[in-house]
Amino acid sequence: MAAFTPVIDDIGFLLSEVFDFDAVMAGLPGYEEVNAELALSVLAEGGRFCAEVLEPLNRTGDEEGCRLENGVVSTPKGFAEAYRAFADAGWTGLSGDAAYGGQGLPRVVQILLDEMLSSANFSFGLFPGLTRGAVEAIGHHADAALKDTYLPKMISGEWTGAMALTESHAGTDLGLLKTRAEPLSDGGYRITGSKIFISSGDHDFGGNIIHLVLARLPDAPAGVKGISLFLVPKFLPDPEGGTNRRNGFSVGALEHKMGIHAQPTCVMNYDGATGWLIGEPGRGLNAMFTMMNAERLFVGIQGLGIGEIALQKATAYARERMQGRSADGTRGPVPIIEHADIRRMLLSGRALTEGGRALAIWTALQMDLAARHPDPNARQAADGFVALLTPVIKAALTDWGFEIAVSAQQVFGGHGYIREWGMEQYVRDARIAQIYEGTNGVQAMDLAGRKLGMEEGKLPHRFFALIRTEIDAAEGRNPMPDLTWPVLAALDDLEEATQALQAKAGDVAEANAAAVDYLRLFALVSLGWMWVRMATAGPAGQTGQMIGRKQALARVFAQRLLPQATALKAAVLAGAESLMAVEDDGF
Amino acid sequence: MAAFTPVIDDIGFLLSEVFDFDAVMAGLPGYEEVNAELALSVLAEGGRFCAEVLEPLNRTGDEEGCRLENGVVSTPKGFAEAYRAFADAGWTGLSGDAAYGGQGLPRVVQILLDEMLSSANFSFGLFPGLTRGAVEAIGHHADAALKDTYLPKMISGEWTGAMALTESHAGTDLGLLKTRAEPLSDGGYRITGSKIFISSGDHDFGGNIIHLVLARLPDAPAGVKGISLFLVPKFLPDPEGGTNRRNGFSVGALEHKMGIHAQPTCVMNYDGATGWLIGEPGRGLNAMFTMMNAERLFVGIQGLGIGEIALQKATAYARERMQGRSADGTRGPVPIIEHADIRRMLLSGRALTEGGRALAIWTALQMDLAARHPDPNARQAADGFVALLTPVIKAALTDWGFEIAVSAQQVFGGHGYIREWGMEQYVRDARIAQIYEGTNGVQAMDLAGRKLGMEEGKLPHRFFALIRTEIDAAEGRNPMPDLTWPVLAALDDLEEATQALQAKAGDVAEANAAAVDYLRLFALVSLGWMWVRMATAGPAGQTGQMIGRKQALARVFAQRLLPQATALKAAVLAGAESLMAVEDDGF
Repeated sequence: MAAFTPVIDDIGFLLSEVFDFDAVMAGLPGYEEVNAELALSVLAEGGRFCAEVLEPLNRTGDEEGCRLENGVVSTPKGFAEAYRAFADAGWTGLSGDAAYGGQGLPRVVQILLDEMLSSANFSFGLFPGLTRGAVEAIGHHADAALKDTYLPKMISGEWTGAMALTESHAGTDLGLLKTRAEPLSDGGYRITGSKIFISSGDHDFGGNIIHLVLARLPDAPAGVKGISLFLVPKFLPDPEGGTNRRNGFSVGALEHKMGIHAQPTCVMNYDGATGWLIGEPGRGLNAMFTMMNAERLFVGIQGLGIGEIALQKATAYARERMQGRSADGTRGPVPIIEHADIRRMLLSGRALTEGGRALAIWTALQMDLAARHPDPNARQAADGFVALLTPVIKAALTDWGFEIAVSAQQVFGGHGYIREWGMEQYVRDARIAQIYEGTNGVQAMDLAGRKLGMEEGKLPHRFFALIRTEIDAAEGRNPMPDLTWPVLAALDDLEEATQALQAKAGDVAEANAAAVDYLRLFALVSLGWMWVRMATAGPAGQTGQMIGRKQALARVFAQRLLPQATALKAAVLAGAESLMAVEDDGF
Repeated sequence: MAAFTPVIDDIGFLLSEVFDFDAVMAGLPGYEEVNAELALSVLAEGGRFCAEVLEPLNRTGDEEGCRLENGVVSTPKGFAEAYRAFADAGWTGLSGDAAYGGQGLPRVVQILLDEMLSSANFSFGLFPGLTRGAVEAIGHHADAALKDTYLPKMISGEWTGAMALTESHAGTDLGLLKTRAEPLSDGGYRITGSKIFISSGDHDFGGNIIHLVLARLPDAPAGVKGISLFLVPKFLPDPEGGTNRRNGFSVGALEHKMGIHAQPTCVMNYDGATGWLIGEPGRGLNAMFTMMNAERLFVGIQGLGIGEIALQKATAYARERMQGRSADGTRGPVPIIEHADIRRMLLSGRALTEGGRALAIWTALQMDLAARHPDPNARQAADGFVALLTPVIKAALTDWGFEIAVSAQQVFGGHGYIREWGMEQYVRDARIAQIYEGTNGVQAMDLAGRKLGMEEGKLPHRFFALIRTEIDAAEGRNPMPDLTWPVLAALDDLEEATQALQAKAGDVAEANAAAVDYLRLFALVSLGWMWVRMATAGPAGQTGQMIGRKQALARVFAQRLLPQATALKAAVLAGAESLMAVEDDGF
């Protein structure tokens, strides 16, 4: 089996020919020196690490899993060394704030590294991914003393991070959580409670582990407004800078999971552990959402990465596996990649993955614009797009990642069900991305119930107008009507669905009933837009090899996947009535 | 957690009010005594066994798995005792030929038991399921001596069966298989070769294990025409009726699989094992297909059963899990079954499962008609429908079973990913049903490439005409236009897609490109027809509780699922061109 091959060519094409990366970066203070050449050289190096160090640990990590013995967590063989090598090479600080020792590269470079990490070793990728989320929450909301103490070592990778939100009775509904925080006389807090599903909650990589814990202060109001965020390190820092004193929390158990076996998902018990408030009392969810939004983009990228690697393996297998006769009956056995149904599975996956990568890059660029653009209006405009697209990226890319992994497994026939081939692990690992960091249903509700109302309801239409403008421009430059027309028709469907939902704004049941189908429709149209950008990139009338390739894939997308838009619109317009009308005995 | 509840009410409604079971049976020689009352009492008893004995072994079986030590296979704790109790109670012979000791009940009763077995314990259900397939192949193709020796003990459950087709390089394309059979002087054969993926290949239930093995005679032509079928027992029968002599085959390994851990899937080595020819030389695939067709219906039912149990568990969880506020904001936390998106998942699953059950019963009734109807024309007509629907049942019901298991897992949020809750096992177990007994892509090719040409291309149109006639009759009796109109519109789509495919008959790439989407479209319309039958059952104008319930679910089906028909038709009509046009660098 071929191992993982970083898709540097596609990234280069996207950055230079689709997104005009160098020009965009040149306009962002602090990123003037960043360009595609630099990004590609960094990513090629990162891709090598992923392929050579992390990918070989993927299946062994799944088979061995993590262990908890005498309160001590062990990760699978090779993980601790790999993590140290990863940190030593500077990868944990790639997009970290230079003021705290990071390399300060833009978000778009970070997500492309994240995708490769997720392809090579999904479980491993969570360690730096969660640390980065914690870094962002601390960076945005903690006071200077906490930042100075924690950020440099987290950015250098010496220390790692974890987020402790969920309790057994409080998942989606965090307002129900019970963990308590009592103020101490020295400005700290005593944290007491139990959390579940804590990824990277403990490990054997060495260094400190910084938990961000949601808890309630005494007399805090019920519900989400009573929740505050605390920084709770595994080892308490001494005034002299040492970290030898163990804090009062422990791993109660490791969760037994469907997948991501190499990731120690912990039940954590905080027994009067010492912590420090991050941000203001009662504003914990707000601070946590800084982390969550970065994590949601990251999780979407995980879906993208696992789709990419599953496709790579299935394609390699389909080129080698000899079964059946050629379509004209003259040759046999032939490589199964000749069979139209196998091509359908592989190419549908390609269309979703390469379209998804483009959409993720576009969204990450909006994050970079929102953070750095000199014009506050431009920052605000980009920020709105990020808010709009974050749930779309998280849910759609993870749904597609799972569906692609399932299809790629199917290409292997019976061998796909056998552990040794590794395909079933992708299915099991991919599945978690649809669930954690807010289930995909929660993402869809965020889009349909909240994001559609932003900017007084104008935000989505601003996005649709951008799509229309770009497609019009593409048609004037490099027309491809068999792609642009269906995309515009699907955009009409999306606008109609959007208006229908906006007309029912405030009706929770209606938004909730439509949400998942609406998000999928939104994602499909957004992908269509990306396929227009890719298929019509470059100077008018010039279609080199890469654009020819993209145009062929764009046709698969337009003809075989985009027609789903009509069905999704119908499901959105169906409304909540039929769902709510079913009596108790109907389930 | 609620355990498994047999759906006796739904079965009773379907048999009596939808399918007029008593009247149909009264017209079939040998089944005159069979009626819904008898069937329900048998199934209630079988359901109790499934709920009380088999379901409690499901998760422990998954956790413990099977072992191979010193060539001996052990199944998980409790399985051997459960199997003996199952056989002793007569369940292995439910539909077995009375001439060999079976109870001779019709196919429709058998599949309803099979569904419950698959709900309660998917891995366990494979043991009797495969034995029955072997019994059918032997019953149809073996000579009287083999039948007399093997059928009584296989039907009684004393002995079990296995089918040995696949080799590592020959899966879908059985023509490539290499196992050899050399004639012996006594009429037997020496079988030599290695097979993989052999479910129930060995176990510790006691008794003999009867392998049906595909192999090549010396000088047999290459490809499928050189394949013959052999009966190869684990223990060779003595002339005196004893079975003490071990035959020359052994378990090379147990496969390590994604799921069905309690099912010993074996690599089998036949080292000059003694076997006997079943049917004629070179006609092995023909004989095997007798077994395969029964197995394909059985596998479809497995998908149905796992969808049912996953829904039951998710519904029970959704009634108990308290998260979020009511849609009007006045109450909270509320059981999540109040949330529209949770209802969407559960009710979409219900619509597919109850529709799928009806379609499976209809198909099984056609098998009973094909076997017993006194009029040869009626037998032939029914046989055509069975041929048409077999790939549809196998592929669509297993795809839906998997998709429902995934949705049901999603209802559990993070808990769905944790092994202890049992939901992730359903996803892992359900996945195999889409792969084995011919992948769902192979089923789709069977439908689109072969079945559409049967009866000179008239078979599908005969089926569509039946649907139209029944819907017209329903409209005259109990009109429900918000269901019947969309179903008729989807039927139009299906007929258009069918004609397009028939116009390209013989073009393998075209059939192959369209097959999976076409099968899904075919299944969706067939389900719509079943929903019309259910929602309009009973005397005109009388809608009791069950019909009111079915009408509510029918609306969910019509409004939220049936709109997919348009998208599927578009994918079918897209043709092969865009898939075949992609160059090698496009993958």
